Amino acid sequence: MRNGGRKSDELRKIRIVPDYIRNCDGSALIEWGNTKVLCAASIEEKVPLWLEKEGEGGWITAEYSLLPASTNPRSQRESSKGRQSGRTLEIQRLIGRSLRAGVDLNLLGQRTIWVDCDVLQADGGTRVASVTGGFVAMRLAVNKLIRSGKIRKDPVISHVAGLSLGYVGGELLVDLDYSEDSKADVDCNIVMNSRGEFIEIQGTGERGTFSKNEFDGIIAVAAEKIENVFKYQFLIFEK
Amino acid sequence: MRNGGRKSDELRKIRIVPDYIRNCDGSALIEWGNTKVLCAASIEEKVPLWLEKEGEGGWITAEYSLLPASTNPRSQRESSKGRQSGRTLEIQRLIGRSLRAGVDLNLLGQRTIWVDCDVLQADGGTRVASVTGGFVAMRLAVNKLIRSGKIRKDPVISHVAGLSLGYVGGELLVDLDYSEDSKADVDCNIVMNSRGEFIEIQGTGERGTFSKNEFDGIIAVAAEKIENVFKYQFLIFEK
Amino acid sequence: MRNGGRKSDELRKIRIVPDYIRNCDGSALIEWGNTKVLCAASIEEKVPLWLEKEGEGGWITAEYSLLPASTNPRSQRESSKGRQSGRTLEIQRLIGRSLRAGVDLNLLGQRTIWVDCDVLQADGGTRVASVTGGFVAMRLAVNKLIRSGKIRKDPVISHVAGLSLGYVGGELLVDLDYSEDSKADVDCNIVMNSRGEFIEIQGTGERGTFSKNEFDGIIAVAAEKIENVFKYQFLIFEK
Amino acid sequence: MRNGGRKSDELRKIRIVPDYIRNCDGSALIEWGNTKVLCAASIEEKVPLWLEKEGEGGWITAEYSLLPASTNPRSQRESSKGRQSGRTLEIQRLIGRSLRAGVDLNLLGQRTIWVDCDVLQADGGTRVASVTGGFVAMRLAVNKLIRSGKIRKDPVISHVAGLSLGYVGGELLVDLDYSEDSKADVDCNIVMNSRGEFIEIQGTGERGTFSKNEFDGIIAVAAEKIENVFKYQFLIFEK
Amino acid sequence: MRNGGRKSDELRKIRIVPDYIRNCDGSALIEWGNTKVLCAASIEEKVPLWLEKEGEGGWITAEYSLLPASTNPRSQRESSKGRQSGRTLEIQRLIGRSLRAGVDLNLLGQRTIWVDCDVLQADGGTRVASVTGGFVAMRLAVNKLIRSGKIRKDPVISHVAGLSLGYVGGELLVDLDYSEDSKADVDCNIVMNSRGEFIEIQGTGERGTFSKNEFDGIIAVAAEKIENVFKYQFLIFEK
Amino acid sequence: MRNGGRKSDELRKIRIVPDYIRNCDGSALIEWGNTKVLCAASIEEKVPLWLEKEGEGGWITAEYSLLPASTNPRSQRESSKGRQSGRTLEIQRLIGRSLRAGVDLNLLGQRTIWVDCDVLQADGGTRVASVTGGFVAMRLAVNKLIRSGKIRKDPVISHVAGLSLGYVGGELLVDLDYSEDSKADVDCNIVMNSRGEFIEIQGTGERGTFSKNEFDGIIAVAAEKIENVFKYQFLIFEK
Repeated sequence: MRNGGRKSDELRKIRIVPDYIRNCDGSALIEWGNTKVLCAASIEEKVPLWLEKEGEGGWITAEYSLLPASTNPRSQRESSKGRQSGRTLEIQRLIGRSLRAGVDLNLLGQRTIWVDCDVLQADGGTRVASVTGGFVAMRLAVNKLIRSGKIRKDPVISHVAGLSLGYVGGELLVDLDYSEDSKADVDCNIVMNSRGEFIEIQGTGERGTFSKNEFDGIIAVAAEKIENVFKYQFLIFEK
Repeated sequence: MRNGGRKSDELRKIRIVPDYIRNCDGSALIEWGNTKVLCAASIEEKVPLWLEKEGEGGWITAEYSLLPASTNPRSQRESSKGRQSGRTLEIQRLIGRSLRAGVDLNLLGQRTIWVDCDVLQADGGTRVASVTGGFVAMRLAVNKLIRSGKIRKDPVISHVAGLSLGYVGGELLVDLDYSEDSKADVDCNIVMNSRGEFIEIQGTGERGTFSKNEFDGIIAVAAEKIENVFKYQFLIFEK
Repeated sequence: MRNGGRKSDELRKIRIVPDYIRNCDGSALIEWGNTKVLCAASIEEKVPLWLEKEGEGGWITAEYSLLPASTNPRSQRESSKGRQSGRTLEIQRLIGRSLRAGVDLNLLGQRTIWVDCDVLQADGGTRVASVTGGFVAMRLAVNKLIRSGKIRKDPVISHVAGLSLGYVGGELLVDLDYSEDSKADVDCNIVMNSRGEFIEIQGTGERGTFSKNEFDGIIAVAAEKIENVFKYQFLIFEK
Repeated sequence: MRNGGRKSDELRKIRIVPDYIRNCDGSALIEWGNTKVLCAASIEEKVPLWLEKEGEGGWITAEYSLLPASTNPRSQRESSKGRQSGRTLEIQRLIGRSLRAGVDLNLLGQRTIWVDCDVLQADGGTRVASVTGGFVAMRLAVNKLIRSGKIRKDPVISHVAGLSLGYVGGELLVDLDYSEDSKADVDCNIVMNSRGEFIEIQGTGERGTFSKNEFDGIIAVAAEKIENVFKYQFLIFEK
Repeated sequence: MRNGGRKSDELRKIRIVPDYIRNCDGSALIEWGNTKVLCAASIEEKVPLWLEKEGEGGWITAEYSLLPASTNPRSQRESSKGRQSGRTLEIQRLIGRSLRAGVDLNLLGQRTIWVDCDVLQADGGTRVASVTGGFVAMRLAVNKLIRSGKIRKDPVISHVAGLSLGYVGGELLVDLDYSEDSKADVDCNIVMNSRGEFIEIQGTGERGTFSKNEFDGIIAVAAEKIENVFKYQFLIFEK
Repeated sequence: MRNGGRKSDELRKIRIVPDYIRNCDGSALIEWGNTKVLCAASIEEKVPLWLEKEGEGGWITAEYSLLPASTNPRSQRESSKGRQSGRTLEIQRLIGRSLRAGVDLNLLGQRTIWVDCDVLQADGGTRVASVTGGFVAMRLAVNKLIRSGKIRKDPVISHVAGLSLGYVGGELLVDLDYSEDSKADVDCNIVMNSRGEFIEIQGTGERGTFSKNEFDGIIAVAAEKIENVFKYQFLIFEK
């Protein structure tokens, strides 16, 4: 039995608090089970140098960090180590790619949206929570651009969200918490858009391997269950 | 008139949420006006090498960080720059010294308490909010050590809290917000304990200078008004 | 038509030169089309600290680098920048996970095999070439351990190799070269073992998205075509 | 009794050698008891980017360093560690703020004066010696600007100097040497201008705390005794 | 007797493979005994900032690196350490100076040639192999500039090559391999041009010292034997 | 005519002040013309890890730095850049090798002598001034070890000193100052011991090249003129 009596295909409770902080241009605190990620979008009225040379269009980039006390035992602060870990860089590249896939960058204008995802408490699934909450922060920042007249046509193509799944002891579990993740044979992170299309699929079998059939199972369940994640995003923007 | 119609000697609203995150050993979210700092204490069962050589006693150290989106415009992430700024290091040294002044380190045993103060939203006074909230996180972690029997005698000597004051346009203002702080002639951060003793006094007159009389005024008002800060700490531990 | 008149499901020429360099414990130069990667395995008779604490078993870790002149324009040297890029760290983590999945680490004994993959010339597919050539270097180093009597039972469970695929202009292409990769809508890197099981699946749709059907197509073709990659590995060890 | 038979309110011998080095625009070697600091001012005909955007006015900034052999035991060189310590950054920020408080930056013109304070030998009070000697180096560099006709009106408002004080064993001591500083209960660094106004007050009670009365005593004595420090500066510029 | 039965004044076998890699503008793999260095020249159509200010002329700069597995035991990767070693920097400065001495930089035009020397396998003499192979890569890049019409007059003044020599057990040996180098009393690296002039002479007697006579012997033998190195360069360009 | 009317083979005035600073174990301020270097030796009662493994014997290592204001224009501080330059590392490696060549490390015992050479004012020849002054600081530290009975037999084999020479406009000049050095065609740094043996010879012809005859001239003059440098060292130790 899973923690809290969850069924194998049952997600943890998700709660998204929009506008949790207000100095930036859009923000959301996402609580996904015991995982808490503060997502914040800041608009900068310029683009990276390499993009500037190319001419038109904007950019969306993400940064991810585990606050030291978000994990047990405490993680050393990366600014004090003087470098970001490979895991951090890998995750923030995934978040950035995922969010860009939901936006027509040409319609964004020559500006950058920075999406900061800082994990306040970590209990598994921080990267998909970051994608999901990061989308909300970004969407709010884009809405601000639209309201202020800086953008005329909405550049957001579709919602973007993520979900993790894995095989633990031969059973396919949806939405792994930390205790499950650390004993999973196969671990998979999926990012999709709200049209049912896949943006990122990352399946890893370090502790085991997986067959084509098992992988097909993951994909099918992911596509179905991620609908529940999108619902929480829709709740915010339908208000 | 100050923002929100505050009087010159009136503090902003303070709210301290204990146990805001739970992977660490003690935590508090402190909301001080629009400033929000997440303070978290983690116990490590060893001490720094230099202290280990000296024999007995424990250690308390603090780390401070502005989350990128806590300020407007966004601040670059220090882990991505590869180094902590002078301001960050100066503040976390102040927090560490202040908290150690409230604890008998010999009674703590050979362990370290790490106090992380991460600013979620910055609107002035982040260092005194960090001292005040950091004390709560540390106190909760010490209580956990006592409950578990690892410590017999309470090592906490007194509560510790901070308050900022400054002269703006010739007027002494208590608890500066960001807009006030950025135009202050003289800026002062005070850390005291709950016995009415001073732990740190830092007065800076970069934009102006101050006379002995003006400084005496700051000290007298600080000693009186900081009582209101201690009240919020007492509320938590009297429950 | 693809460069060199390749068919959509045709791999480029692969050539693996074992023992290309000899100061280390196993090496292979892999030439995969115009991509050239020097893979070298070095045995160190100790394990990382965290593993040492856990007791038994060995470790395999990989490092990846693009030599500056392997790309056009030249890439800045990471040692001169003072940090490895996110891309580098992401790729070397993938290589390490992939190679570990082919080995029973408990049979390796308390030692580490470092697998260095240095790209001499880059023309797409460097990460799967690194996995494929890195396996050969690692296998040769393990053979040396067996010959010297340091290991009794072969810890290698199966061969490990990789293959990249992608959709370019709506067509599924196997083994993308750089010009194809840079215009692919969907890009996928697959790592499998020689038993037909999947170790890693990474599909990215930054420029586009992909449907479940398209992804199923990728998986099916990958599983078939990777057989041609394993053949080149088998050639070496059947001698 | 203090080292050298000093009375509790007696300063150590101070000697300031102007123009000690001559490649820069102004310099002074300050010997304050056994503490020796080489202070050097270099004029750069541009200002930091953030100031350039604001339009007019110049900038004064300071850097501080302990030479490795200035302390016993030797301190590791910060350039070899790859980062400056928090203590270094805290001190150089203090020196910079203090010197700027003595200058009308608008009269300086669009240029920066760099003030380097390198401690050749450390025996307590290095930060106040740096402020005091740094002022002389800066003043000499400003004089050079005036002589050359680059500045018409003297931008120096007043002299700036510093003094340290502390309570050791219950007694208020002026100008602590290293052996006193390391056992002080309360430690205070004061920076004033030659008009009798305060620029910085930093009081720290890590080992103890201090009452309002004790602090008032520090302030009163500081204001009186710092006159003796200004005398040494006046000697140089009255010649 | 030396390894491979070499006489004291006999060089190891040298083989230079031009155009070994093809994304850059000129390359050469130099195999010098068991030492293998991949040298690659990349043209960048700009010059360093300090040179740009001076007006005309180009620049040639070199970078050097030991691949981790080129040595036994493995060397830690410098990009992972976050800094280049003193040895690396010292060698790449030598290579750069040496190559610049063979070129009239004014005739090169406002461009930079980067010469990367990456040691694939190290067995002594890597720095002189890098100079020798680096010259070939640079010469090929210059030829490309001439063929494309970007340069009219050949800027190459003369060939440049290097040779190491040393006293081992009192005997003067030419072209030390690693085992000889590590027990040499005196170690000397010579760079000359093909006109018989010296560009760099570096003699080190850390383990011993050397007399004027011994040094004269080194210089005389170097000047004679380096002719054999130039022969391999001439073979390439006479084709 | 040279600055100050010096003849081509005439050295600048040298002055060595022993014991200039006193927290370390030996020190010397060397003033060589307008070049001023503070050399300081600190004894550490342990050796580097790699040496510890080898068993007996001590170590001598040097660090070199240009203080920012020692040059005109000011040099950026390396601790603030976060890395030491190639020039710095190259010079400190030379100083360390040179000093070790004058000492029997086995007689030093398992300890390290750190020799810090900090250039207060730079006017050419800083590296040979550092070797020469660094020897004095080291010798004083060794004397302290002998006086305290920690070492029985003097490990110093001979004095060590350096001298720079170069061809400027076709003329061989001894002891180049900065203005001469910056226009020299060929530049040579020589380190010798007081027995007339060579320790290091570094000749560089970046701006020109040099013939065997010219180099022979340099060596002969260096060997003669360095006697004048040793005299200043002898003056100190004959007292």
